[in-house]
Amino acid sequence: MPELRKDPVSERWVVISTERGRRPSDFAMPAVSDETGTGGAKCPFCEGNETKTPPEITAWRKAGTVQNTPGWDVRIVNNLFPALIKEGDVNRTGMGVFDMMSGVGAHEVIIETPNHGLTIPDMDDAQVEKILWAYKERIQHLSEDNRFRYSLVFKNYGKVAGASLTHPHSQLIATPITPRYVKMELSNARRYFLEKERCIFCDIVRQELGSGERIVFENENFVAFTPFASRFPYEIWILPRRHEFAFQMMSDGERLLLARCLKDILKRLKVTLNDPPFNYVLHNAPNPVPRPGKPDYWGTLQYDFHWHIEIIPRLTKMAGFEWGSGLYINPNSPEEAAKYLRDAKI
Amino acid sequence: MPELRKDPVSERWVVISTERGRRPSDFAMPAVSDETGTGGAKCPFCEGNETKTPPEITAWRKAGTVQNTPGWDVRIVNNLFPALIKEGDVNRTGMGVFDMMSGVGAHEVIIETPNHGLTIPDMDDAQVEKILWAYKERIQHLSEDNRFRYSLVFKNYGKVAGASLTHPHSQLIATPITPRYVKMELSNARRYFLEKERCIFCDIVRQELGSGERIVFENENFVAFTPFASRFPYEIWILPRRHEFAFQMMSDGERLLLARCLKDILKRLKVTLNDPPFNYVLHNAPNPVPRPGKPDYWGTLQYDFHWHIEIIPRLTKMAGFEWGSGLYINPNSPEEAAKYLRDAKI
Repeated sequence: MPELRKDPVSERWVVISTERGRRPSDFAMPAVSDETGTGGAKCPFCEGNETKTPPEITAWRKAGTVQNTPGWDVRIVNNLFPALIKEGDVNRTGMGVFDMMSGVGAHEVIIETPNHGLTIPDMDDAQVEKILWAYKERIQHLSEDNRFRYSLVFKNYGKVAGASLTHPHSQLIATPITPRYVKMELSNARRYFLEKERCIFCDIVRQELGSGERIVFENENFVAFTPFASRFPYEIWILPRRHEFAFQMMSDGERLLLARCLKDILKRLKVTLNDPPFNYVLHNAPNPVPRPGKPDYWGTLQYDFHWHIEIIPRLTKMAGFEWGSGLYINPNSPEEAAKYLRDAKI
Repeated sequence: MPELRKDPVSERWVVISTERGRRPSDFAMPAVSDETGTGGAKCPFCEGNETKTPPEITAWRKAGTVQNTPGWDVRIVNNLFPALIKEGDVNRTGMGVFDMMSGVGAHEVIIETPNHGLTIPDMDDAQVEKILWAYKERIQHLSEDNRFRYSLVFKNYGKVAGASLTHPHSQLIATPITPRYVKMELSNARRYFLEKERCIFCDIVRQELGSGERIVFENENFVAFTPFASRFPYEIWILPRRHEFAFQMMSDGERLLLARCLKDILKRLKVTLNDPPFNYVLHNAPNPVPRPGKPDYWGTLQYDFHWHIEIIPRLTKMAGFEWGSGLYINPNSPEEAAKYLRDAKI
């Protein structure tokens, strides 16, 4: 019999069909690497084509190399077709029942490697660390801009997942509002904390480590598991084991361990599901908002929160009415998914 | 410059890119009718194949015809692969931080016509009315089952939108919980009502009719428009002009006018966007929950609500990180979409 499961963080109910034992191959999609091509002259993200992108914002560069020329390991530029515009004030207006704001924000691209065909599972740890360094740098920098409330880091891998360029890259969108799912998580986490004096994510981590059945990977600082109420087959969350509300708080030592965790998980996904398309999204605390007399407006909200990465493989087309209802039907059991991922030969 | 707009009902912010005037053909997809085929012996929903589906629950039949044989205009059967199971009690259990429920529910298919190739835009009004009759019948019937809190009616049109069979059909899923988006709408509508003593949907309808710029269709009882904070290009909502919280309350006269409205809108979509895939979802008040001393538990919640149909054409693949963040980026202006839809030659 199927089960209805509730995710305690988002308060979202999910239908988990556990009827038939599905194998990873039941979800097989064409491998993303088949659409990658070889890069070169036409790819604006390949080394040597630095002038084909908007100017470099920052980069991890070899000593002595110059902006907007080769010699970088990770490079950050503005998105050529930004969803939001960096210049201008945040004008808030109302029109009867409707509210609006000028579309001020940042939309940046993190080019993860100069090498067109190299993805995270095959990078060395140090390269993955540099990508995480870039996330941190940009979140930190943009949080100092008072117009922005939030920096959303995400990755679209494969056309099906929304990537329009095949060269490995992530994106960051800074917005004058906090995205809705993050806001819901924040307020539910706060309510839980007020009631129990404990972080809900810490409780989940403890319970997952205790049962072990959904754990995919763990090291000293990080744990990755298929969530109890997974919306999608092979959905995976990565959390720091220690209570930490902001990604920017991560130490260099932790960053290395996160790099290893992320690489391990993406490799397991790649091997188990034949290099599937996926999205990942970093759920972080919003930027602190300085106000007169209240240097940190979000205050406890942030301390209740626990940053994490949500990985969503794009294996099913079943998300039709889900968009209109918020009710997800997952045809695969998270426990089985975790088992297949643990058993992957990587 | 792009705009951030907030939908007052769901409190969802959407980025609307108004930069470049996009034409409907910029969103063109292969026409769904190209994948429909001719039905016949292999299609379980075609007339004459009644024994290839689970037994008939109910049908609109010609006088003198017999269950599970030809002679029907609209036919309702259980889904052969139901997401939830009809038999059994709703067992609620907790496991540490997690909550779960047995997957009890109904999953029914409304076969909209015996004619494989006939879709709503080309049906006569009376046939569309029969489909709406079926929705009402089943919602009403299932609301009398105390195990179910909600009946979600939806339609997946085209493979891209999640349809696995091409014969015209809708679906209904009855659940022991209220789906999350509906719940959020319910509680936001209630808050608005408590504050202003007015229905938020009635206010939106008034404002939309006043400005007219997003109106696509109206008749005496119904209005259809592209919402101010549309998540998707050519998203359309249909609402009754009169305050009405439950779809089941609709009179026969209203049903005819809704049939005409739905038919008109789907025809405009078909003509403007070359028969695109779409989903629609009926957002209705939850079932009343009878409790000792409180015959109608939801009470005011329901009276605050205003049922409506949300139509979501599936034109963009941009919904990658949207799933992980709740932040939508719509590359098309709702005002332009409304204009193209109004101008459609139907």
